[in-house]
Amino acid sequence: MISLSLGEIVRTLGGKVEGNAETRIEKIGTLEGADASSIAYLANERFLGALHATHAGAVILATDQCNATQLPRIVCGNPHAYFARVTALLHPVANAVAGIHPRATVDSSATLGSGVSVGPNVVVGCDAHIGEGVSIGANCYVGDGVTIGAGTRLWPGVVIYHECRIGERVVLHAGVVIGADGFGNAWDIDHWVKVPQIGRAIIGNDVEIGANTTVDRGAIDDTVIEDGVRLDNLIMIAHNVHVGAHTAIAACTGIAGSTRIGRNCRIGGAVGIAGHLTICDNVEVGGKTLITKSIAAPGSYSGGYPFEESRAWRRNAIQIRHLDEMARHIKQLEKRLALLERKDP
Amino acid sequence: MISLSLGEIVRTLGGKVEGNAETRIEKIGTLEGADASSIAYLANERFLGALHATHAGAVILATDQCNATQLPRIVCGNPHAYFARVTALLHPVANAVAGIHPRATVDSSATLGSGVSVGPNVVVGCDAHIGEGVSIGANCYVGDGVTIGAGTRLWPGVVIYHECRIGERVVLHAGVVIGADGFGNAWDIDHWVKVPQIGRAIIGNDVEIGANTTVDRGAIDDTVIEDGVRLDNLIMIAHNVHVGAHTAIAACTGIAGSTRIGRNCRIGGAVGIAGHLTICDNVEVGGKTLITKSIAAPGSYSGGYPFEESRAWRRNAIQIRHLDEMARHIKQLEKRLALLERKDP
Amino acid sequence: MISLSLGEIVRTLGGKVEGNAETRIEKIGTLEGADASSIAYLANERFLGALHATHAGAVILATDQCNATQLPRIVCGNPHAYFARVTALLHPVANAVAGIHPRATVDSSATLGSGVSVGPNVVVGCDAHIGEGVSIGANCYVGDGVTIGAGTRLWPGVVIYHECRIGERVVLHAGVVIGADGFGNAWDIDHWVKVPQIGRAIIGNDVEIGANTTVDRGAIDDTVIEDGVRLDNLIMIAHNVHVGAHTAIAACTGIAGSTRIGRNCRIGGAVGIAGHLTICDNVEVGGKTLITKSIAAPGSYSGGYPFEESRAWRRNAIQIRHLDEMARHIKQLEKRLALLERKDP
Repeated sequence: MISLSLGEIVRTLGGKVEGNAETRIEKIGTLEGADASSIAYLANERFLGALHATHAGAVILATDQCNATQLPRIVCGNPHAYFARVTALLHPVANAVAGIHPRATVDSSATLGSGVSVGPNVVVGCDAHIGEGVSIGANCYVGDGVTIGAGTRLWPGVVIYHECRIGERVVLHAGVVIGADGFGNAWDIDHWVKVPQIGRAIIGNDVEIGANTTVDRGAIDDTVIEDGVRLDNLIMIAHNVHVGAHTAIAACTGIAGSTRIGRNCRIGGAVGIAGHLTICDNVEVGGKTLITKSIAAPGSYSGGYPFEESRAWRRNAIQIRHLDEMARHIKQLEKRLALLERKDP
Repeated sequence: MISLSLGEIVRTLGGKVEGNAETRIEKIGTLEGADASSIAYLANERFLGALHATHAGAVILATDQCNATQLPRIVCGNPHAYFARVTALLHPVANAVAGIHPRATVDSSATLGSGVSVGPNVVVGCDAHIGEGVSIGANCYVGDGVTIGAGTRLWPGVVIYHECRIGERVVLHAGVVIGADGFGNAWDIDHWVKVPQIGRAIIGNDVEIGANTTVDRGAIDDTVIEDGVRLDNLIMIAHNVHVGAHTAIAACTGIAGSTRIGRNCRIGGAVGIAGHLTICDNVEVGGKTLITKSIAAPGSYSGGYPFEESRAWRRNAIQIRHLDEMARHIKQLEKRLALLERKDP
Repeated sequence: MISLSLGEIVRTLGGKVEGNAETRIEKIGTLEGADASSIAYLANERFLGALHATHAGAVILATDQCNATQLPRIVCGNPHAYFARVTALLHPVANAVAGIHPRATVDSSATLGSGVSVGPNVVVGCDAHIGEGVSIGANCYVGDGVTIGAGTRLWPGVVIYHECRIGERVVLHAGVVIGADGFGNAWDIDHWVKVPQIGRAIIGNDVEIGANTTVDRGAIDDTVIEDGVRLDNLIMIAHNVHVGAHTAIAACTGIAGSTRIGRNCRIGGAVGIAGHLTICDNVEVGGKTLITKSIAAPGSYSGGYPFEESRAWRRNAIQIRHLDEMARHIKQLEKRLALLERKDP
């Protein structure tokens, strides 16, 4: 177990200590769950009550909250990000053991940088390039001609199809599939003809992709995920989609073919975005929204249908199918009323 | 093929035979598809027509339907559950062969109970504890420090990350991922900082989880799935979610971080539940509903938008965007009408 | 790199050359991205501008557009399908090397046709039948008694449970799970009893299934995907569903148990279809629609809730919960107005 004093932490991560800088920290915790050896953080002032009740040994606070407690504390500009970095200090990711497991199957034409770790039952195809310090977990498949940048980690069971490119310091969680064929089909009289998918999937640097998410390869051009993007679990990125840098997308969302998502967007869970759209930078989309048109102005967009008790929902949902009629009815009432009003002095 | 008489069945499972207890049964079937060697069951009285037309050799009926047919029959309190148990008698799950396949890679520090079956290309990490009679299918990955309770079955291609705990008699279907990192990201000026996820995923006893479902590990505390829970395929359980005992969740549903779901809930397919909510016990949620607020009263809740022929849908959906205006318009009409009525004797 | 003249292409695929039949083609491209060695196609007249600006060496056009350019061109009935076939000529799928990889584990009772390719870490169970020319990618699992038809390709990491049947020329992408247990549970007083799932999943000929899609086995009877069906990624096909021939379903859609989908249907992405319904042939369903009733007439159906800027959405969504009340209010206004009108001469 790692133990750090507040003074040691600020020497590494910046920020300022208020109170006893010798306070030693071994763990991170929530305000509610922390004990005397733990450090917690105040996300925002809604949690001031929890701050006052906490048993944490120290806390991380924003500058404008620096006197909200007398506990030993680190004051900084961004407590959430600071807390993330303290967590990483106290819980460093275990380095996979460098070397190729005897049960890995690595093609002799593949090139591997120094310090690469290849787990058991991994398959690496011909002409693959694996950068320095890459860690490939058990049972992964890395296709022919794939490039993986330095410091990237594949958890077990990841599949990367031929010719795809993965950036540096990327994290791919278990079950991720990169570069499967896009859904390209041409109808011919009475059956579908497969449209071969000859583009690639290109993943930038510092991207993290959650478990069982799929990013299809492009039809002709490439599918692109830019630097710093965060994709949660069970997301579908279709062929030729382009996701701008530092955009975050929550779980169960699907983005249809050829759509361009801007930079710094925040897309909620279970969102559906139709194909061939352009979403500009800095767009937020609420959970379960269906986006059917391009969005040209930054801002927050939503379209989740409200839930209610099922009996009430049935009564109200029925009226949805009469809305157009209802609107016309209101217009007629308006006209008839105006007529009466005119007659009436 | 196993063959059982009705008498043998009730001696094992309870219930009462009406008619010839020597009737032999080799198969289960639907009322429509069953033949003379098959047993079927009456789910409810809507299927009385099918009961009268069935060619089944015997049927399972509820006590209050016990004279609905003259076929040999088993009368019991819960025909559906009884039928499930008869099916299990006639179709016992093939026991995997005990032993470690020569192509499995099991760390020497892992402990395995008696009768454990470890398939080809399985990887078991250091300090893992595998209980008695556990069956681990081909190509599974069991991380360092994982505990798996007695009698649990992993179908091929399951991934369990380090330190997670799986209860007894659990079934995990192919492609399930337990304990991948939760979606924890802190925004820092112009990029995301990963929040290390140091909690675990804890799965209770008698849980079944469907193919390609993902249960993320907790951020600080654990993600918890209590005893007897049923999760269908392609479900996302985010970090720090807590699912109460005996709750069943249908496919394609996503539950966002830190939400607590009560016991005995029934959540439909493709439901989305926002983060940090509390859903009480005994709540039913209809398919494709978006839950955005906590639910404190047991009952049935829905929020699926009604479908219709596309042209009608376009006309009605347009009016959704005018609803607030429409409501204000109705109020104005009301006022103007009341004014006219007052003038009118 | 393959190089073909327009004349060679029409001799193989039909159609007619206009302009120089000796024009040589090495690549396919979009109208925007193509160069002198590339062939592109005109999808429809909306892209006439791009056609006039293209740098393509040749283009594929429909008969009624045959004079829309003076470039060397192939004129045919269905440019999209023709383009797909040209792509396949120029980019033939690399044949997997025939033979069983030394790290595959194939049961001695399995039968393999000629030219079969079995990759590393593949497991093939007892009594499996693998047809001629089948290619099984790395880390796949083929259960006991499974049949796979000639010419089928499994990409890495596919799992096929026992007794399932896969047709000829099928493509299963990475992470596909065929034949996991359906979600069958009988409630018994205070817990779920598993209903054993003893049916199979049957996949027809010429089917393609996208990454991480799951097709569950039937409860008693089989789950059936007919010939020529196209399933995109992350789709859930529940137990006993029947999908008719040549139906295409986009990503993230879920179809609940025992529903029958007709032939030649086109189901959008993130659609939910409830259980025990019948959808007739030639039905189109818009993205994110919830289908709660059977559909007996061919046509287009939709039910996506419209999105808008979040503040407007909040105002309008609130009124959804008052729709029934609003409808009653309008009726009352109508009555009161009619009364005034009658009094008024």
